[in-house]
Amino acid sequence: MDEFQLIRRYFADPAEPRDDVVLGIGDDAALLRVPPDQDLAVSTDSLVAGVHFPLDLDPAAIGHRSLASNLSDLAAMGAKPAWVLMALTLPEVDETWLAGFSQGFFALAKRHGVALVGGNVARGPLNITLTVQGLVPKGKALTRAGAQVGDLIYVTGNPGDAAAGLQLLQAGNKDFTDACIKRFAYPEPRIAAGEALRGIASAAIDVSDGLLADLGHLLEARGHGAKLGLEKLPLSRDILKHHAKEEAWKLALTGGDDYELCFTAHVTQAAAAEARLKQAGCPVACIGAIEAQAGIHCVDGAGRLHEYPRPGHRHF
Amino acid sequence: MDEFQLIRRYFADPAEPRDDVVLGIGDDAALLRVPPDQDLAVSTDSLVAGVHFPLDLDPAAIGHRSLASNLSDLAAMGAKPAWVLMALTLPEVDETWLAGFSQGFFALAKRHGVALVGGNVARGPLNITLTVQGLVPKGKALTRAGAQVGDLIYVTGNPGDAAAGLQLLQAGNKDFTDACIKRFAYPEPRIAAGEALRGIASAAIDVSDGLLADLGHLLEARGHGAKLGLEKLPLSRDILKHHAKEEAWKLALTGGDDYELCFTAHVTQAAAAEARLKQAGCPVACIGAIEAQAGIHCVDGAGRLHEYPRPGHRHF
Repeated sequence: MDEFQLIRRYFADPAEPRDDVVLGIGDDAALLRVPPDQDLAVSTDSLVAGVHFPLDLDPAAIGHRSLASNLSDLAAMGAKPAWVLMALTLPEVDETWLAGFSQGFFALAKRHGVALVGGNVARGPLNITLTVQGLVPKGKALTRAGAQVGDLIYVTGNPGDAAAGLQLLQAGNKDFTDACIKRFAYPEPRIAAGEALRGIASAAIDVSDGLLADLGHLLEARGHGAKLGLEKLPLSRDILKHHAKEEAWKLALTGGDDYELCFTAHVTQAAAAEARLKQAGCPVACIGAIEAQAGIHCVDGAGRLHEYPRPGHRHF
Repeated sequence: MDEFQLIRRYFADPAEPRDDVVLGIGDDAALLRVPPDQDLAVSTDSLVAGVHFPLDLDPAAIGHRSLASNLSDLAAMGAKPAWVLMALTLPEVDETWLAGFSQGFFALAKRHGVALVGGNVARGPLNITLTVQGLVPKGKALTRAGAQVGDLIYVTGNPGDAAAGLQLLQAGNKDFTDACIKRFAYPEPRIAAGEALRGIASAAIDVSDGLLADLGHLLEARGHGAKLGLEKLPLSRDILKHHAKEEAWKLALTGGDDYELCFTAHVTQAAAAEARLKQAGCPVACIGAIEAQAGIHCVDGAGRLHEYPRPGHRHF
């Protein structure tokens, strides 16, 4: 099979074409139309086999995760996903793998109305690099930069579940009905939540490297610190099936792959943020507040400070 | 060194910031502003070490080529480059390599006014995936689809030189003053030529897989064929230093990596096309014409038909 047959067979977008795609896959470049009242949000990310996911992960999950992790970056900007390009490097053609990958990818793409508008297939070690593009009303994007001292810190969903799921997978557990494993394999980008927070959140970031690491990036933007209440961490019943509370805190704070949103809001916007997210069907918890003093201080119910390693700074 | 230090050290864009970059590197996504009268042209492409370039190629050349091959896709659409995102997968941090790569990349980016607005660095086998974005007045993009029977076929520059250069490199020749080696290592995307051909060329494609293969893609769009005059192929003096004419024809037709433009124009537009390219400083040659009959027929000065293998369909 050559590159072009492969693209036709596995990467013909099954969704209805979007009106704003002037020219899709098949030419030297795609041609897209950005409405004049919108900014274009663009992000690129790679998943490398054996680094970002276990080599034997279900191909549908790989297809889903690769898109979910990229869409999550758009969610953190409050952008609505529109288009995606895929650069796929494959060691060989495994049609079963490709069919599964493609199914997982397009199922998620369809749910968010994202069109695959271009890409490239090359031979080489397995690498999936996506570039996602989304739209956000001019000047309304969420960024990492707006948090102020006293702002409340929120996180969506149940951080830690994905890290617990990865641990289970790495231990050989393949029970995809386990909620934590499912959360690692099929994370849900918080698109609706990101859009709902436009004009309300003072800063936002998605949680891919771990809550402490990503909150750290958000704080770095202003040189602030934060105080977090460990008892406020929204631990799921699922993670508590596998771990004691203290270990679950650690996974929630230092595990990656959650693709939840961490955001801040001024206290006067707290009620609005919570109401909008409720309307968007997105669970959210207030876990702390921004402080002037640098560093993130994690305090338990008895007022004791807990120390955690800071991962997320991926060393080479 | 961690990912963030590496990005700051080697990928801080040295050029003047562009006004249309609302937010560049450092957040979850870049925010870009597309003028209301422009379409957005987007393309992504990967270079894999050992597949798309020799492992020991000069890192500055790798940086240059990775961007040049992507910009070439924009040139083929008649688009003006604006922004680029880079997903880089590296087996290890080699600071000498990174410094050279970065220098080659930004030197070319600067010449075309392209801003690096985002990216990702991950650990893994060397893979450089770029996504380039350009602007083209609405409805004015060149595509592969408009060629009509009787249209003249043109190619810019000197196809074959890059393939001859790659052969020399593969044979252990490292003389970077050799024009063919230089052409492989530092191809020049035909941006000005693409822009000059807006409204004049009936179809266009860039020559990355080889002239016959890429012209073939352009013909497939309409089910047409073509007749090419071998004596009309614009062989350089440089390629003829290394190869007899017949072998040079073969390299010009089947070798890849030229990143020249192949385009068609109605006979009434031929003079305008040639004049505009002259003005843009781009050498061009008319090498044949579109025919109704499928297939590409290559005829020498004595009227003899020559057969060539059709590469470019990259098999897995």
